[in-house]
Amino acid sequence: MTCNTAILGASGYTGAELVRLIATHPHLRIAALSADRKAGQQMADVFPHLRHLDLPKLVKMEEIDFSGIDLVFAALPHGLSQALVCDLPQAVKVVDLGADFRLRDPAAYEKWYGAAHVATALQQTAVYGLTEFYRDDIKSARLVAGTGCNAATVQFALRPLIAEQLIDLDDIICDLKNGISGAGRSLKENMLFTERSSDVLGYAQGGKHRHLGEFDQEFSALAGRPVEIQFTPHLVPISRGILASCYLRGDAQAIHAALTAAYADEPFIHVLPFGQCPGTGHVMGSNFCHIGVTSDRISGRALVVATLDNLCKGSSGQAVQNANLMLGLNETDGLMLVPVFP
Amino acid sequence: MTCNTAILGASGYTGAELVRLIATHPHLRIAALSADRKAGQQMADVFPHLRHLDLPKLVKMEEIDFSGIDLVFAALPHGLSQALVCDLPQAVKVVDLGADFRLRDPAAYEKWYGAAHVATALQQTAVYGLTEFYRDDIKSARLVAGTGCNAATVQFALRPLIAEQLIDLDDIICDLKNGISGAGRSLKENMLFTERSSDVLGYAQGGKHRHLGEFDQEFSALAGRPVEIQFTPHLVPISRGILASCYLRGDAQAIHAALTAAYADEPFIHVLPFGQCPGTGHVMGSNFCHIGVTSDRISGRALVVATLDNLCKGSSGQAVQNANLMLGLNETDGLMLVPVFP
Amino acid sequence: MTCNTAILGASGYTGAELVRLIATHPHLRIAALSADRKAGQQMADVFPHLRHLDLPKLVKMEEIDFSGIDLVFAALPHGLSQALVCDLPQAVKVVDLGADFRLRDPAAYEKWYGAAHVATALQQTAVYGLTEFYRDDIKSARLVAGTGCNAATVQFALRPLIAEQLIDLDDIICDLKNGISGAGRSLKENMLFTERSSDVLGYAQGGKHRHLGEFDQEFSALAGRPVEIQFTPHLVPISRGILASCYLRGDAQAIHAALTAAYADEPFIHVLPFGQCPGTGHVMGSNFCHIGVTSDRISGRALVVATLDNLCKGSSGQAVQNANLMLGLNETDGLMLVPVFP
Amino acid sequence: MTCNTAILGASGYTGAELVRLIATHPHLRIAALSADRKAGQQMADVFPHLRHLDLPKLVKMEEIDFSGIDLVFAALPHGLSQALVCDLPQAVKVVDLGADFRLRDPAAYEKWYGAAHVATALQQTAVYGLTEFYRDDIKSARLVAGTGCNAATVQFALRPLIAEQLIDLDDIICDLKNGISGAGRSLKENMLFTERSSDVLGYAQGGKHRHLGEFDQEFSALAGRPVEIQFTPHLVPISRGILASCYLRGDAQAIHAALTAAYADEPFIHVLPFGQCPGTGHVMGSNFCHIGVTSDRISGRALVVATLDNLCKGSSGQAVQNANLMLGLNETDGLMLVPVFP
Repeated sequence: MTCNTAILGASGYTGAELVRLIATHPHLRIAALSADRKAGQQMADVFPHLRHLDLPKLVKMEEIDFSGIDLVFAALPHGLSQALVCDLPQAVKVVDLGADFRLRDPAAYEKWYGAAHVATALQQTAVYGLTEFYRDDIKSARLVAGTGCNAATVQFALRPLIAEQLIDLDDIICDLKNGISGAGRSLKENMLFTERSSDVLGYAQGGKHRHLGEFDQEFSALAGRPVEIQFTPHLVPISRGILASCYLRGDAQAIHAALTAAYADEPFIHVLPFGQCPGTGHVMGSNFCHIGVTSDRISGRALVVATLDNLCKGSSGQAVQNANLMLGLNETDGLMLVPVFP
Repeated sequence: MTCNTAILGASGYTGAELVRLIATHPHLRIAALSADRKAGQQMADVFPHLRHLDLPKLVKMEEIDFSGIDLVFAALPHGLSQALVCDLPQAVKVVDLGADFRLRDPAAYEKWYGAAHVATALQQTAVYGLTEFYRDDIKSARLVAGTGCNAATVQFALRPLIAEQLIDLDDIICDLKNGISGAGRSLKENMLFTERSSDVLGYAQGGKHRHLGEFDQEFSALAGRPVEIQFTPHLVPISRGILASCYLRGDAQAIHAALTAAYADEPFIHVLPFGQCPGTGHVMGSNFCHIGVTSDRISGRALVVATLDNLCKGSSGQAVQNANLMLGLNETDGLMLVPVFP
Repeated sequence: MTCNTAILGASGYTGAELVRLIATHPHLRIAALSADRKAGQQMADVFPHLRHLDLPKLVKMEEIDFSGIDLVFAALPHGLSQALVCDLPQAVKVVDLGADFRLRDPAAYEKWYGAAHVATALQQTAVYGLTEFYRDDIKSARLVAGTGCNAATVQFALRPLIAEQLIDLDDIICDLKNGISGAGRSLKENMLFTERSSDVLGYAQGGKHRHLGEFDQEFSALAGRPVEIQFTPHLVPISRGILASCYLRGDAQAIHAALTAAYADEPFIHVLPFGQCPGTGHVMGSNFCHIGVTSDRISGRALVVATLDNLCKGSSGQAVQNANLMLGLNETDGLMLVPVFP
Repeated sequence: MTCNTAILGASGYTGAELVRLIATHPHLRIAALSADRKAGQQMADVFPHLRHLDLPKLVKMEEIDFSGIDLVFAALPHGLSQALVCDLPQAVKVVDLGADFRLRDPAAYEKWYGAAHVATALQQTAVYGLTEFYRDDIKSARLVAGTGCNAATVQFALRPLIAEQLIDLDDIICDLKNGISGAGRSLKENMLFTERSSDVLGYAQGGKHRHLGEFDQEFSALAGRPVEIQFTPHLVPISRGILASCYLRGDAQAIHAALTAAYADEPFIHVLPFGQCPGTGHVMGSNFCHIGVTSDRISGRALVVATLDNLCKGSSGQAVQNANLMLGLNETDGLMLVPVFP
């Protein structure tokens, strides 16, 4: 069985990562690739590491014939998916890797993204794409909204703890260390090699990061009352990877037990033995998420550290995982690639 | 005026950094260099970047004639300074860059370093070397104990806030991002380039790091009651630099005002405009510490981020700053080197 | 069809890379893993990135029952394979990733490795493992000697040119830029992150590198007369990758045409359009080799640049490719993994 | 004695490096800073690592009153200095860090830079700024043209050998490894951290690099006949540093002796003992150039490797060195900063 997919926005890093994953996927096929500014070029011109693959040429989105497409991966800049999805044939399933459908509440969308949503009806039907927690909905969804990469990392660390009321909901501090590919391939002075290669610094501090909209939505729904976390990302000089250090109030052993139990049957989420800390280097290039729990000398405090590859499990790997479910394939198809180390 | 110095343990990174700083210092001269395992070698063999300097050959410690030495920098592995300092002529001043004299309480020393202190009388006379806060004592000290590099970074962020009772003393969380040179030049598998270059991970988590002994001592003394902070360092792939993200409960504007006032006349400590975050890359190779303060969307929370170069302001630069005071020189002599960026 | 393999020396980087490749290989299975110093440990303790795999525990070599093993991958330090292979049951095939069987001439072996070969009979039967050029011999071999990683890179650039007499054999200069994983996981001061992360320097200059033994053997045989190349590797701060810049005298267009023709049907060797230069980042984590050819303003000069991942195509990927042939599998089985970028 | 300087183009990396050097220079003072697009900003906004310095605000070039300026450093994009220098008061000395005055021959300028020179009279009076070889001319010059950073590195390796006829002039191959700051601070996709951090690749191959114009001019003049070298730069993931591996035909020992003698009294050029290879990490942040010479197993071949910091000795450090001479100061004033390692 082969399903035809199209990747919209294939000239960005998440687009390239989708190609990487689908190239060795047993049941997915790339039927079309779009990239508006690079239309007409070969993928190998834009991404020489894909040189060996026989891929369709990059075209403009409107040149794609969607009639033979089973599923579209939309890896577009935020804001562009809303209109697009409305225009697609109803039979085409969609995994949106952008932010357009992550928030269910139009007001929340407008608050965090600064503009009214233009497809609010569709917005209500989108399923939030955190596979491990929305599996059943995803299986029957037409439109799945991929999560933010930070949002995925922190939710893997916290959801079972919030659901089981194991932590103080009013004292959650998440300090993230983020690989540079999270900023995409766009030209920004502060993303130059020279600016980033020997530097560590925080950004979007103080509660300004858009992924907070996802945390608020998901954690509040889970807790049945408003939950706000303190969340601070930091740029570190690695290409791929997010490490989330979550400072919590609760019993560390109980927390470890709950996470271990929650993910016991999950193929991609691995909880380390108590007291061990995961590293971004151990999930690089893979769809795995590693989670570690330690106690502190201060009683009642716990540290939960989660790490994943932002481009894979945090974005394109998650997208393929969701596509697998939407298309009736095995959830792990094409995704058991081993991390690349060193 | 020229003061003669000896560097003990010159084959490590803090030893090399001392040489770097003293080489362009207007009043210090290097009269002797020791390195037990590399005795007999030239410094240029051990550190080719010092090739252009006319330096004494590396010798064993016992070969040094201390009679002409005004001040000794002891950059030795932890535990070796205790006996050594006892044996030095009383006229020789000492700046110890190791951990032997940081803790004043013998019981605390034994708790954190796993062995009884062998020079407890001397231990009582040592002055804690955080220059900006122990300036007067350092001027008249014979023995100054350089602080831990993490300890220095966090104390610059927190001391004025604790002293002025601006933050909740029972809710201090410090998440550190640490350059690899903090581990020194010793051979450890997890410090290989291949292990560290694409990895971020925490270590010494849960309250096990020895610098906690310094925090406990200093913050409790300052507050007049026991204070324990939660402190977690993380290895990030940069050679030099520490970035401490301190999550606090207090009024961010008041915190910013207090830090700004506290450091207004300090030549090396710079508080950024409110809302800005410093980066390790902006202090690399220098004796400066940059501090930034931001508020959070959650009222009553503040984030104070401090950064410095662990080898310079966190260790060897601090040592020279203290030596300047001990020798009656200007505190900033030889230390106004501009950070190297990019 | 499933073939049982054992990996000897599994605690090194090439061992881990073999595990990575075999984990998603359709027909190979890991039946045993040895690592003398780490015997008794789980692979996940030694390589946390392999945590999700169900792998046999690390044992000492002598604990392995080779009776059920179809093929052994020997990823041992140089010198240890010679005796070992003699002791293995004759039915067990062997791919040696070390240097013990690369040189056919005992005198050459002794010259480059400083000791007499202890299994000279076996040495004569070993097939040199450069798959693309020894394919038929490898299919029927019991013992295949994996090539040096530098040796593979340069040979992909030069073999067709020497065979077709397109270049001046007395003026071949190969300047290599080498990722740090080529030095393995052993503890050396000059391989620390701090020593390598901002440094580029040459090593083994002047014709001292052991891979020269392979070049001499292979190029001389190919040319039918002695050929010596000038070969200088340089350490650059990347974990994986070799880029060989080969300065040649010959017609660049003819050289490009010859390379293009020679590799037209090769699945792993890709010749770029004339005038383009490959980068190590475009083959990272894969079994591909990219080759580019440019002319120079000085007539009669050509630059051929070849790049591959030293741990994969330069070592463990090549080993699996050879094992596939020896076991009657498809040559590309398990090896079409797409490079990881960025 | 204090000399007033202005830096034009202060918002680029060479501008920032000039500020770094002048800040601790005993006799130079920064009286004005220009940056057209960032006029009105403080230098600390553009380069936070300069935060502690009391610097004039960035202005547009035409806002500067040059009447009190002794010397102008022009760190402008190529092409902008030509008209500018004509407009400056005759009493103002100029060190141009760009390419506008490097080539004396208008035809050569047009060939390499694609446009006619607009100040050909001035062009004739400019002195080529390779201090160690044009010292006397520089002392009395009004206009000095800073060399290309690659051009400086290779000339330090080769000039004494060409002058003394120790090498075959028709067989000079220079393979360079270049830090990323050589590309400046401008926005290019291929200079993003994600594109460069794990990649090594060549560029401007085949004789297209503009620094070849300088090599042709200088080496031909030195040899008294046309000399063309083969020159290939490669991008490596370090911020600062150039390592030039020069493959030569000649007697390695004689070459080493000649270089040692040529630079015996030079404060910034250091020739290593025979057989040692320098590394970029050992000159980082300094004005030093390290040179190593090795022989090869192939008789008659030599490898000369030179390294320097492209932003310092290759550009801004060289500029200050030249300014020192032009202003009657000691050549080494402000330039004896020790390399930063690790």
